[in-house]
Amino acid sequence: MNEMQWKPLKDSSEPLHLQIYHYLKQKIMHGEWTVGTKIPTQREMAKQFQVNRSTVVYALEGLIADGLLETKVGDGTRVINNTWSLLTSTPPPDWKSYVSSGIYKPNIDIIQEINRAEADPTFIRLGTGELSPSLLPNDRMRKILRTGHENLSLGYVEPKGLLSLRKTVSEYLKTKGMVASPESILIVSGGLQALQLISMGLLERGSTILHETPSYLNSVHVFQSAGMHLFGVPMDQEGIKIKEIERLKKQQLAALLYTIPNFHNPTGTLMTEERRANLLKVCQNISLPIIEDDVYGDLWFENPPPKPLKADDTQGNVLYIGSVSKTLSPGLRVGWIVGPEPVIDRLADIKMQTDYGSSSLSQYAVEKWLSNGLYTDYLKEIKAELMYRRDFTIQLLKAYFSEIATWSIPEGGFYIWLRLEIDISTKKLFGLALKEHILLNPGIVYDKSDYKHLRLSYSYASLGELEEGLVGLARLIKGVL
Amino acid sequence: MNEMQWKPLKDSSEPLHLQIYHYLKQKIMHGEWTVGTKIPTQREMAKQFQVNRSTVVYALEGLIADGLLETKVGDGTRVINNTWSLLTSTPPPDWKSYVSSGIYKPNIDIIQEINRAEADPTFIRLGTGELSPSLLPNDRMRKILRTGHENLSLGYVEPKGLLSLRKTVSEYLKTKGMVASPESILIVSGGLQALQLISMGLLERGSTILHETPSYLNSVHVFQSAGMHLFGVPMDQEGIKIKEIERLKKQQLAALLYTIPNFHNPTGTLMTEERRANLLKVCQNISLPIIEDDVYGDLWFENPPPKPLKADDTQGNVLYIGSVSKTLSPGLRVGWIVGPEPVIDRLADIKMQTDYGSSSLSQYAVEKWLSNGLYTDYLKEIKAELMYRRDFTIQLLKAYFSEIATWSIPEGGFYIWLRLEIDISTKKLFGLALKEHILLNPGIVYDKSDYKHLRLSYSYASLGELEEGLVGLARLIKGVL
Repeated sequence: MNEMQWKPLKDSSEPLHLQIYHYLKQKIMHGEWTVGTKIPTQREMAKQFQVNRSTVVYALEGLIADGLLETKVGDGTRVINNTWSLLTSTPPPDWKSYVSSGIYKPNIDIIQEINRAEADPTFIRLGTGELSPSLLPNDRMRKILRTGHENLSLGYVEPKGLLSLRKTVSEYLKTKGMVASPESILIVSGGLQALQLISMGLLERGSTILHETPSYLNSVHVFQSAGMHLFGVPMDQEGIKIKEIERLKKQQLAALLYTIPNFHNPTGTLMTEERRANLLKVCQNISLPIIEDDVYGDLWFENPPPKPLKADDTQGNVLYIGSVSKTLSPGLRVGWIVGPEPVIDRLADIKMQTDYGSSSLSQYAVEKWLSNGLYTDYLKEIKAELMYRRDFTIQLLKAYFSEIATWSIPEGGFYIWLRLEIDISTKKLFGLALKEHILLNPGIVYDKSDYKHLRLSYSYASLGELEEGLVGLARLIKGVL
Repeated sequence: MNEMQWKPLKDSSEPLHLQIYHYLKQKIMHGEWTVGTKIPTQREMAKQFQVNRSTVVYALEGLIADGLLETKVGDGTRVINNTWSLLTSTPPPDWKSYVSSGIYKPNIDIIQEINRAEADPTFIRLGTGELSPSLLPNDRMRKILRTGHENLSLGYVEPKGLLSLRKTVSEYLKTKGMVASPESILIVSGGLQALQLISMGLLERGSTILHETPSYLNSVHVFQSAGMHLFGVPMDQEGIKIKEIERLKKQQLAALLYTIPNFHNPTGTLMTEERRANLLKVCQNISLPIIEDDVYGDLWFENPPPKPLKADDTQGNVLYIGSVSKTLSPGLRVGWIVGPEPVIDRLADIKMQTDYGSSSLSQYAVEKWLSNGLYTDYLKEIKAELMYRRDFTIQLLKAYFSEIATWSIPEGGFYIWLRLEIDISTKKLFGLALKEHILLNPGIVYDKSDYKHLRLSYSYASLGELEEGLVGLARLIKGVL
């Protein structure tokens, strides 16, 4: 609703309020705004149409006079008729009940608020887990696209994804110490879809997934919407704590364990080699499959991380997830799952049943990047940039947050898990900062009982914005105290 | 499992059987074939590796001697240990139970058989509902990619899809008599994903969907896997029969009606203008929302079809689905849903939650095709080609099937719904034809009680294959009689 592209023409002979009147009437007449729809507020429309609020009021009065809209105190303005429903007595479908009754849950409120603020470029985004658009290699991609293409095909690709890409991914995984043949690799539309397929294809409703606390998993609905339960396992500086896993597996009848060993989202933690070995051993002992989410693994700064769990997984215990979304391009929507062949076969079948495979053009483009060394070259640059941004952010934290917060220095990835050492809820802080146009990712998004942490990201905001945002945030906190 | 890419090297100093032994051992050691996995048959492996069966037997004997494989009569050969499980006593995860226990159902047997045969290029595919790869405009796409790209971006796109594409689609829909603003359009990864999102976002578990009998819906699991029921409504030469809909809505508590008015899959039927008006009126009267699947609408031969239902939908009763998969490219995975804004908002939220949007590169490419007239030009060519193929196929049917079958002549799209007027089940015929390497789409795929029809498609097989396949099929039928 809050994304109207249209604006009235300032230099038209038709008055602005009449243009708005006709535009809104058309939306009602063509069923885009069905009877019962609550329309945007006058203030929102004035902002979107770039007119005075009185102009909007004038337009709305016309529609109210036509009997199409009705305003009720405390309920805003709603569509009560369209020109046709005035002539007939039949109600439109009760879409409202449809919209509220799907299996899939809507995003939680705070995430919806974050999404809304992200659409507004005036916000400084201190927690966004993406590369800044300015860091993406758009120019190089344009250049790549301008040559070659002898092998490009517009047809459907193989069920598991473009074979040439799977071969290339197989080679690329070798550099991480993994042996995976192309038939044990499924190309997916990013890491989130990997989880979606696993939730639909491998788990019974009511299954429990163990995960680190805090965890990225709590910020998405993929398992909960499929009827699964999430259960958190504590972590320390070396990664997820092993001790409780066996007991929790039995107590919770856990079906899977989800972990992000490399530059964990949201804490930035790098799981140690020893912890990896122990985690794999324990999970093998109790036959608990592991989902290893490695979407940040390529973004190490000074030293490469230990080998993925999957590299030492001789029993087929691990489903490994990789992606180019955090490195090369989130828009391409290309990632992969590696696992035992019967599992990959099953997930491929489900993928075919839900979207007939990922974009062949995207797969083709990623194959070009990975196969000719361009990706490796680009990684060096982006890692240097991220490391510079990490150092810059740590300097700011030292200067402005030393007395109010603590943090660890991440060795890769995007995130600093800032712990406020003062008596203020980060959920409340989120609301206060929002008013100052500073967008935060509070701990509650990743752990519903966490009111102490913020996930800072140095990947998205510019250096200037990082400084302005962090200085403003520190001032805000000190003002509240 | 049946997609091993590797082959032994014929000119290696290592004997073939040893190369195969090492290859298979590696798959077991790295957990691609977990303990319990049933491996391909000797015959399948001999074919894939392009060696004699005795070479495979020799390699397998080594693995059996190592204690890694075991052969049981009637159960084939299975992995019983891997080198590590020989040393420890812990079992691997029971992936078999995971694979069989997901929410999503596997494809039905006959569809799995069709999928398998489609992977084998020696089959003549008489029913495949895709454009032949040779008809896709690969050259033109290469040319498009080689120029421009000033606006290309690798970042995430807007939740509803690339704005420039939605604006272009909005203009393109005007040519069909539809008024739809960009904010009432959601870009999706093809028509199937549109249905997937509707099933997850708008319907309660247990809801009933009405559809034409036969219907494409019966060939996919999208609604059933989400816990919905399908219920068929009869059709005649003018489209879905209206009479029963009101009663069925009440009796079945139907939540939606799904229809393909243009060049229906699988019957090829074109719904008349009068039927469209009546269908819309009845559904409006009983507040039954309609999903209008229009993925074949652009493929008319001599006369354009009547306006879509959506064009006259003043109440927001219709969710309209379009796509370029049947015209420009199935591999791009780009389609759209048009509907009331609150519904589109909800579906966009779910799409973001499941795959963070469709490939930006694909959206960008489709926008180029649609916006500069290339798509329209290409449509003219592809429609001429399809019409030629239709006429060619009808000639073959007249020559070889006049005494054994009846059919209607489609005015667009891909399909001829061939009714056998003899006493032979088309399900049985499917199996017989398969042995002759002729792949059929029997009626049972689209209506589980239909043993009389075959869905013929003139879009995929070459003219030579169409002739060879249809002549062979007629011979086969006459041989059985």
